[in-house]
Amino acid sequence: MTDTYLQQLGQQAKAASFALANLSAADKRDLLMTIASSLQAAADDIVAANAQDVAAANAAGLEAAMIDRLLLDEKRLAAVIADISNVVALPDPIGREFDSRLLDNGIRLCRRTVPLGVIGVIYEARPNVTVDIAVLALKTGNAVILRGGKETLNSNLALAKAIRTGIAEFGLPEDAVQLIDNPDRALVSGLLKLDQYVDMIVPRGGSKLQRLCAEQATIPVILGGIGICHLYLDKAADLSRSTSVIINAKVQRPTVCNALDTLLVHQEVAEQYLPQLAAALSAEGVTIVGCEETQRLLPAYEVRPADEETFATEWLSLTLGIKVVADVTEAIAHIRQYSSGHSEAILTDDIPTATYFMNEVNSAAVYLNASTRFTDGGQFGLGAEVAVSTQKLHARGPMGLEALTTYKWLAVGDYTSRS
Amino acid sequence: MTDTYLQQLGQQAKAASFALANLSAADKRDLLMTIASSLQAAADDIVAANAQDVAAANAAGLEAAMIDRLLLDEKRLAAVIADISNVVALPDPIGREFDSRLLDNGIRLCRRTVPLGVIGVIYEARPNVTVDIAVLALKTGNAVILRGGKETLNSNLALAKAIRTGIAEFGLPEDAVQLIDNPDRALVSGLLKLDQYVDMIVPRGGSKLQRLCAEQATIPVILGGIGICHLYLDKAADLSRSTSVIINAKVQRPTVCNALDTLLVHQEVAEQYLPQLAAALSAEGVTIVGCEETQRLLPAYEVRPADEETFATEWLSLTLGIKVVADVTEAIAHIRQYSSGHSEAILTDDIPTATYFMNEVNSAAVYLNASTRFTDGGQFGLGAEVAVSTQKLHARGPMGLEALTTYKWLAVGDYTSRS
Repeated sequence: MTDTYLQQLGQQAKAASFALANLSAADKRDLLMTIASSLQAAADDIVAANAQDVAAANAAGLEAAMIDRLLLDEKRLAAVIADISNVVALPDPIGREFDSRLLDNGIRLCRRTVPLGVIGVIYEARPNVTVDIAVLALKTGNAVILRGGKETLNSNLALAKAIRTGIAEFGLPEDAVQLIDNPDRALVSGLLKLDQYVDMIVPRGGSKLQRLCAEQATIPVILGGIGICHLYLDKAADLSRSTSVIINAKVQRPTVCNALDTLLVHQEVAEQYLPQLAAALSAEGVTIVGCEETQRLLPAYEVRPADEETFATEWLSLTLGIKVVADVTEAIAHIRQYSSGHSEAILTDDIPTATYFMNEVNSAAVYLNASTRFTDGGQFGLGAEVAVSTQKLHARGPMGLEALTTYKWLAVGDYTSRS
Repeated sequence: MTDTYLQQLGQQAKAASFALANLSAADKRDLLMTIASSLQAAADDIVAANAQDVAAANAAGLEAAMIDRLLLDEKRLAAVIADISNVVALPDPIGREFDSRLLDNGIRLCRRTVPLGVIGVIYEARPNVTVDIAVLALKTGNAVILRGGKETLNSNLALAKAIRTGIAEFGLPEDAVQLIDNPDRALVSGLLKLDQYVDMIVPRGGSKLQRLCAEQATIPVILGGIGICHLYLDKAADLSRSTSVIINAKVQRPTVCNALDTLLVHQEVAEQYLPQLAAALSAEGVTIVGCEETQRLLPAYEVRPADEETFATEWLSLTLGIKVVADVTEAIAHIRQYSSGHSEAILTDDIPTATYFMNEVNSAAVYLNASTRFTDGGQFGLGAEVAVSTQKLHARGPMGLEALTTYKWLAVGDYTSRS
């Protein structure tokens, strides 16, 4: 039953993908603007559907933060629709030809960027993602199968209906965007094995979802969004300018993947610096979990003792692990052991130390004298963000539109045979 | 037991990868030449070990073609060693910086190519692959875990020993190259789940191995090397020049993935052309499996009737499927249904038809008026070939050295916080 349903979704998505693959940039622009109008026309229905989801979430006693995440009122919907114009304005990454060359045998060879085909995206209870991902997929000529959180099913159904109406109005197959309309978890497992039709899976969610995808998928998966992020404060750092960066990395938005988890402090500056840092952190409501040396240096603060789990934890909250290290080499060794490969930073004014750190640390993003909070498609100037990849294949770090493309080799001969 | 063994291989490989990641191009050149010398010095041992494998294969009654594949005599070993110089001469893809820009907030951002880290390669009984892959991995600063066919275990052990001796002589950790020294198949399954240490799996083998990797791996896998390749003969093709291309695609090396499997013939030229083509194919010993129309048009030949499996078959032999189609649109629909996404070709002199085919067919390589046999790293001028990918992420078609790299984002600020 679920198999038949998914097979059908897959077939429909693949068929739609062929109709999208060779659209001109102008056609894709007009398609997205038609979808924006369609969403606007359906705004009342969407807001009403979302109100149902919010009411159900309230009745189920969900946390206020969670309910805020799934709220899509008139104002927020207007912002989501307005964002479509930003994607429309981005350059079309499809159809770029590169590595063109004339081979000795007379064959003219090049690579051309093309859509991936069909993308499967699994995400949590954020209805805006339904629109964001559909728009990014269509912008790059891809069909998409969406699986959102069950808490926003009504909202997602209303959004998908409006998007599909827009696609059909434009004269393209509405199955270019399909939403799995059943909260059964077996459908997630089934989607992960739909390799006959789906070219890439993007899980946008926590570590459980990431692990599930890694273990069950027979389709290439872009893992990401898990960040155990480090900042190493070197002895040559300008301490007077360091606190603002550390505070920014930790407290500006503690629940996201690029927030700071572990601060590594050079032993020669720890005694001088940690008390003033602790005061600043404390004023921001940050709890410190520290190594023995950190505990010793901060008797005035309630430093929780670090255990073996401490430095393997992505806090996603106002907690910061602190460890005093002998030097940059120990800092790098610590990062290699505990990092999830997301974002790491060094604060120093010493060029050789900075160069060494930037070369030796191999995470998706490595910072000198900057907050880890910059690891983000918007901040990096990509114009849009599909996800943040922490694996090494295909795309690494913030993924822009190019991550939704592949290339094909085109070769033109003159009835040429291989000798 | 196997778990502990693999964990240890993984840890050792990861540790070695850090020592390789920042080697200069000159160092990597010298490292590879040291390995070449070491292999030369161990030539007698290697040839003797291979003789053991060949004797065992003969005793086990393996086919002559299989035994020829695993043979590594003095002359072949010399060629394998000489090939190392070709890899040495290739440009180093590591350390290239691209997309550099100064952001509005003063952060200088770029991407830099870096090694993947640790690569796992699973391959069949071809001892030359042990050297080829080790050399390509080291050239790109990666550590590698090798798992070769059990029929060449003695050869592979002797080769790996010589390679590791060379690495140690050069002063680097010999665990940069490790060979799984036990033919237990559980070790393959274990390797596929070693995601804590291994960054990419490359299976070089048949469809069973590819499927096993897709289903079991928790590590990104580069699937490839399976080609159900099509050639569409359009009504506007120059028939007098077409036969040589079709013969080349089918018979030059029928056992490889870029050999032709299915010929699609436009109905308007089928009656005129198929008899002359059949004569040429017959002279080359090719068996035809044809649709009803093909059978009708070739009464003088023993055309086997096509069944539902025919066009989903990668022949890897001197067999060719032939189907008469109404036009280019039906040809494309057939390709979309049956292709493995490897290589497809059209023969035509009509520019609009050619353009349509090249745009609409989305396989790794699409040819106009050329044989499918060109899909190959050497032929495409990549200098080396790691594998031929038939998936769409990371690398597509022939994979050169760049497929063994990823990138990291480097950002330099001035104690910069996100606002």
